[in-house]
Amino acid sequence: MAVYNIPPLAKLIDQFESLPGIGSKTAQRLAYHVLNMTKEQAQEFSNAITDAHEKIKYCSVCCNFSDEELCPVCRNQQRDKTVICVVESPRDAMAMEATREFDGTYHVLHGAISPLNNIGPDQLYIKELLKRLSDGNVTEVIMATNPTVEGDATAMYISRLLKPLGIKTTRLAYGIPVGGDLEYADEVTLARALEGRSEL
Amino acid sequence: MAVYNIPPLAKLIDQFESLPGIGSKTAQRLAYHVLNMTKEQAQEFSNAITDAHEKIKYCSVCCNFSDEELCPVCRNQQRDKTVICVVESPRDAMAMEATREFDGTYHVLHGAISPLNNIGPDQLYIKELLKRLSDGNVTEVIMATNPTVEGDATAMYISRLLKPLGIKTTRLAYGIPVGGDLEYADEVTLARALEGRSEL
Repeated sequence: MAVYNIPPLAKLIDQFESLPGIGSKTAQRLAYHVLNMTKEQAQEFSNAITDAHEKIKYCSVCCNFSDEELCPVCRNQQRDKTVICVVESPRDAMAMEATREFDGTYHVLHGAISPLNNIGPDQLYIKELLKRLSDGNVTEVIMATNPTVEGDATAMYISRLLKPLGIKTTRLAYGIPVGGDLEYADEVTLARALEGRSEL
Repeated sequence: MAVYNIPPLAKLIDQFESLPGIGSKTAQRLAYHVLNMTKEQAQEFSNAITDAHEKIKYCSVCCNFSDEELCPVCRNQQRDKTVICVVESPRDAMAMEATREFDGTYHVLHGAISPLNNIGPDQLYIKELLKRLSDGNVTEVIMATNPTVEGDATAMYISRLLKPLGIKTTRLAYGIPVGGDLEYADEVTLARALEGRSEL
């Protein structure tokens, strides 16, 4: 839509447009917003990007994002180190944290097995998970991968690896979402909800 | 939602969240996207922000954004310098450009008169417009401020300033938007469309 071209502006719009979920109109609005910032604000925004990128590494235990050797969950003495919740991404871990119902630790795989996208078990952080289980302190591994074909396959793959170790492996419950409308639930979800029904 | 806190990540999320139209969930997604970039990509993004901010100034003629003394429209010999389209913001000028129907030049006011927000005519780039008109070459000024109370007031104010100069001042037509639905048009718009009806 840049009918006339101002190179530094076009470049900034392009950068915003390359972000997920940002279309060309939004990218334009964001770029113009940046131009209206004070010099200090723009500098701070710019620094936040490089800073975050430079300082944040993977936690040496759970592979979640962290700016220190151990992430806040892994270095927290209050957290139950005998339970590990396996998730696909750091955002999934953050979503679990938001429930405030889980006081164990996480393990971030950074993806799911997906032959279509050429992602096999070796590209995921599964070795690191097995290493954590080797000392025998962990009693339960909760598979919290996404409820998709890839997530299910990954959960299945890992649970098979864990079987010989004798560690309890569980999977998040499938069912109807709270606040959802039964008539809009798809049949697979509804079938799973029926299958997993519990006594009142 | 940052239940556990990684300072550089929290800062980056905050920065994204301060942008217009970006909520906390989107800010998180964008921040995680930045973390997944390569070092070069992150650096490029960061640079695009400071570069745009440093290099882009106001065009010395029309006050639109420009990385040179004159903006691409003002330095284009093909554009009709006798017609000036007055807009509130650079984005409005870009929207006009996108129609590809206008070959005159622009004048960007950088705002509209708004007593509620303490914005008077002196805060706008109106002096610069009057200076452009002083040489007598301009034959028409098109008021393309927004169809809001502020935009209308600004258009009215400027048209009164121009009256003694004997320059033709016009206003964009009000009416029903193309592709819109008549039953959803508000009554004011519909009344203006009726008022401004043209013969077929």
